[in-house]
Amino acid sequence: MTYCVGLLLTRGMVLLSDTRTNAGLDNISTYRKMFTFEDPGERVIVVLTAGSLSVTQTTMARLTEAIESPEATPETSIMQAATMLKVAEIIGDTLAVTRAEIDDKLAAGQASATASMIVAGQRRGGTMRMFLIYPEGNFIEATEDTPFLQIGEHKYGKPILDRVVTPETSLEEAQKAVLLSMDSTLRSNLSVGMPLDLAVIEADTMRITSRRRIEAGDAGFAAMSQAWSQALRDAFSGISL
Amino acid sequence: MTYCVGLLLTRGMVLLSDTRTNAGLDNISTYRKMFTFEDPGERVIVVLTAGSLSVTQTTMARLTEAIESPEATPETSIMQAATMLKVAEIIGDTLAVTRAEIDDKLAAGQASATASMIVAGQRRGGTMRMFLIYPEGNFIEATEDTPFLQIGEHKYGKPILDRVVTPETSLEEAQKAVLLSMDSTLRSNLSVGMPLDLAVIEADTMRITSRRRIEAGDAGFAAMSQAWSQALRDAFSGISL
Repeated sequence: MTYCVGLLLTRGMVLLSDTRTNAGLDNISTYRKMFTFEDPGERVIVVLTAGSLSVTQTTMARLTEAIESPEATPETSIMQAATMLKVAEIIGDTLAVTRAEIDDKLAAGQASATASMIVAGQRRGGTMRMFLIYPEGNFIEATEDTPFLQIGEHKYGKPILDRVVTPETSLEEAQKAVLLSMDSTLRSNLSVGMPLDLAVIEADTMRITSRRRIEAGDAGFAAMSQAWSQALRDAFSGISL
Repeated sequence: MTYCVGLLLTRGMVLLSDTRTNAGLDNISTYRKMFTFEDPGERVIVVLTAGSLSVTQTTMARLTEAIESPEATPETSIMQAATMLKVAEIIGDTLAVTRAEIDDKLAAGQASATASMIVAGQRRGGTMRMFLIYPEGNFIEATEDTPFLQIGEHKYGKPILDRVVTPETSLEEAQKAVLLSMDSTLRSNLSVGMPLDLAVIEADTMRITSRRRIEAGDAGFAAMSQAWSQALRDAFSGISL
């Protein structure tokens, strides 16, 4: 399983992913699920992935090949695409084709593979945009009414986001919100696991303002997690029936 | 959808269910999902149901018929069964048979029906026990390590239970915990809805100590929900990154 979340706020975008993958309960590994593409000041794109690792890895490899190809065009390379909408289309198409190919291979074994992605970015001259791309390649976009997108195991971590995130949330508060949302998910679903990848894109900078890998045992994250548990229990005690 | 939760604590059991059922998004109704059977001082049983309404209603009707039948025996009536384990077996068997019958009917339309239940109770001379009964009729039991059981849309409301419920939780705190767990679920899943049914069984009384229907717009529940939202936001503000 996986949990990835992205917030689209007035002041920027905040993205967080876990790194745990599993093929059965007895085969658990760590793989990066956050991929960043940056031409600082010109264009920044972050992709978060959930689902079958063979689908997401192949999709990301193909997107990278298309960028690096000498024949790259605005129709094939997400670093040249004219708009973020076009970026989402290229990624959606690549995902859909890859998924269909792998699904065909798996059909022999009556299995199937699926994957979804969050794509966030901004190009110079454009606005920040964030998309959730479905396994079939179609997508939806974050808006002021729904300023966050989630993929994977999204339910445990949604109540906190519903309560505290608005488009006006500061980037610092937003990082707290996604980390606490992840914390709830980590507690409830063992197939979501540390380390975590956290990225912040400040509005109109077209670069990754900060990027942080939070390892298992990170003292700051542990302290925040513990403080939140205590605060929740205190809040609970303070409520009257 | 549905959300039902039961806590098995040293001091008693607390059970909560919503009442919303839907056949598609355009056909939403209110049905009771909590069923109580009581011979005060002798035996008390509460059943919470989730899943296909045709399965749960028929199962409950058959269990009631079996109790009222002049030929009722400890093998067929949950009010005569020698132990709570036998109660769980009777309910599990009735559920499995009913589900299989309805599934056969639906197979023609390539549809299927499923349902699960929480069964909580105590008979004089026995201990309190709580079971989660699966659609196939097998079941698991709440224990000290896992003092709560959930059916239906269980994920949104689990983090709060994980954090505050232990076997030593008081019955008052327990009612708060299940109501706040339901509150998180109501906010996130529209197919879980008011009114709510709340029941408390104090240990060794073999009776329903209190029973309460909480209607939409209930002032106490709304106040608690609002206080919890505020407390969560305050707790969130108090955490440092």
